[in-house]
Amino acid sequence: MYLGIDLGGINVAAGLVSDTGKVVSHRSVPTPRTPNAVADAIADHVKNLLSKTGGTVEYIGLGAPGTIDPDTGVVEYWSNLDFHHVPLASMITERTGLPVRMENDAGCAALGEYIAGAGKGSSSMVVITLGTGIGGGAVLDGRLYTGLNHAGLEVGHLVVEHKGRQCTCGRRGCFETYCSATALIRETRKAMDSAPDSLLWTLAGSKEKINGKLIFEAYGRGDAAATAAVEEFLEYLGDGVSSLVNIFQPEVFAIGGGLAGAGEAILDPVRRILNHEDYARESSKRTKLVKAKLGNDAGIIGAAMLGRTE
Amino acid sequence: MYLGIDLGGINVAAGLVSDTGKVVSHRSVPTPRTPNAVADAIADHVKNLLSKTGGTVEYIGLGAPGTIDPDTGVVEYWSNLDFHHVPLASMITERTGLPVRMENDAGCAALGEYIAGAGKGSSSMVVITLGTGIGGGAVLDGRLYTGLNHAGLEVGHLVVEHKGRQCTCGRRGCFETYCSATALIRETRKAMDSAPDSLLWTLAGSKEKINGKLIFEAYGRGDAAATAAVEEFLEYLGDGVSSLVNIFQPEVFAIGGGLAGAGEAILDPVRRILNHEDYARESSKRTKLVKAKLGNDAGIIGAAMLGRTE
Repeated sequence: MYLGIDLGGINVAAGLVSDTGKVVSHRSVPTPRTPNAVADAIADHVKNLLSKTGGTVEYIGLGAPGTIDPDTGVVEYWSNLDFHHVPLASMITERTGLPVRMENDAGCAALGEYIAGAGKGSSSMVVITLGTGIGGGAVLDGRLYTGLNHAGLEVGHLVVEHKGRQCTCGRRGCFETYCSATALIRETRKAMDSAPDSLLWTLAGSKEKINGKLIFEAYGRGDAAATAAVEEFLEYLGDGVSSLVNIFQPEVFAIGGGLAGAGEAILDPVRRILNHEDYARESSKRTKLVKAKLGNDAGIIGAAMLGRTE
Repeated sequence: MYLGIDLGGINVAAGLVSDTGKVVSHRSVPTPRTPNAVADAIADHVKNLLSKTGGTVEYIGLGAPGTIDPDTGVVEYWSNLDFHHVPLASMITERTGLPVRMENDAGCAALGEYIAGAGKGSSSMVVITLGTGIGGGAVLDGRLYTGLNHAGLEVGHLVVEHKGRQCTCGRRGCFETYCSATALIRETRKAMDSAPDSLLWTLAGSKEKINGKLIFEAYGRGDAAATAAVEEFLEYLGDGVSSLVNIFQPEVFAIGGGLAGAGEAILDPVRRILNHEDYARESSKRTKLVKAKLGNDAGIIGAAMLGRTE
């Protein structure tokens, strides 16, 4: 049995994970605001999950946000809760008596998808998540890759348009300014302004209530404003995915996050772009583009399995 | 002792390589035009190099161009010599009695730089070469990464400008259409057309004789046409390098190829861009941007060492 924690800005989720990578028991609480309270909440999750089964685990796996140092178990900086140099791993060990293995949250989610989801059985997988921003993770030749400082795979900050849209990271033209859910919703709202007859108004009621699901519903029904926004989004998505495929040539490329709910409405057009833009399009071995499978469980499963892959 | 072959469109180079990754004996001949003649030339290199020392090697390492399958030792397609499904490894074994280990040429060059050059002692390294196009290779967590089909790290075909310049690969806006030596020379020639007083005319004599070295000489001396072309080149280079650093966060990022001869005139401005555009710029661990060290020897050394890293 394994135990994984997914620490996010909204919830701290935890799960007991089976040897085959299934979440067999799950808990979640809203994320407290101080380091001590976060460590308490995690310890509480651990005690509850273990007492429920009467079992034990060899370590706690922790997927942590922000800038982290897995070697020391320290969250160096996390803007969301304004954490600075919080020795979270040792704080959890003090409370539980169990060692902690830590990796960045996107890396854990990728590892989870690799072990038990879209990447199962493959040699290498890249996952991107289209949500508030664009996150990413990679398991290459069977091993989680995160780079020198565990901050790699920031695929949202790949520039797809020189001097393009302003990104929150300070650069211009980043992939996530075109293809995150946030970006698609923003551009759709702009399109609604000049389309008072758009179906989007009927479906959403107001601009504020627009979300990815409604956009793809309107797009599926041929609404002009939704079509304009989605087609631009797909063009940039095809560019970004093709670039990442040209760099990694992974066996599996999985798309997750909120917008992945659109399924083939996203995957099929991007596959068609890849058939023209994948540099290895003539190769007998091509990257498979699929939807991520595990949703929010991916982070818990990957964190739980951090010790298994070493 | 190791033996490496670097098969290119112009020359077939070979070298005996010491245990520390130094080329101790070197041979090169113009590349013949048929599969049998190429295998003969390689076998000839091997016999000559080994007879010179009276020693032997356990295998021949081969850096091969085009689309390859290292598992079968086949060059599936190489446009340059119009090779289709050439079983080059077994053809060499037939002629020499030695097993062959094969990898793509850019991967071999990256491995060479990692073992004996700019990446020596690091955990991970990405190399890009600014030449006719832009090539790339990566050694991640100590292992050469080439992807599912050994066609990964085609960093020249990362789109840096959506709908930008037409690339030979069929896409638009690829990194190499802005930052290869070919691209810089082409844009400089255009700038010369509207600058009849440019120093470039004096240095080169004619547009045809323009090369990277002359462009950077004129740039260093403040020539306006050279400055315009180089500044645009550096801006795009900074974008592309920053994107790759955000993806890989390697310990070392090395720039090689013809234009790397410009040294700090390229590295210093890109480092300044990275200080703003590296997503991990606040991390205590930052990617080091350096010049590749081994030049053409990198491919021979990496090929020779292919068996050592397995």
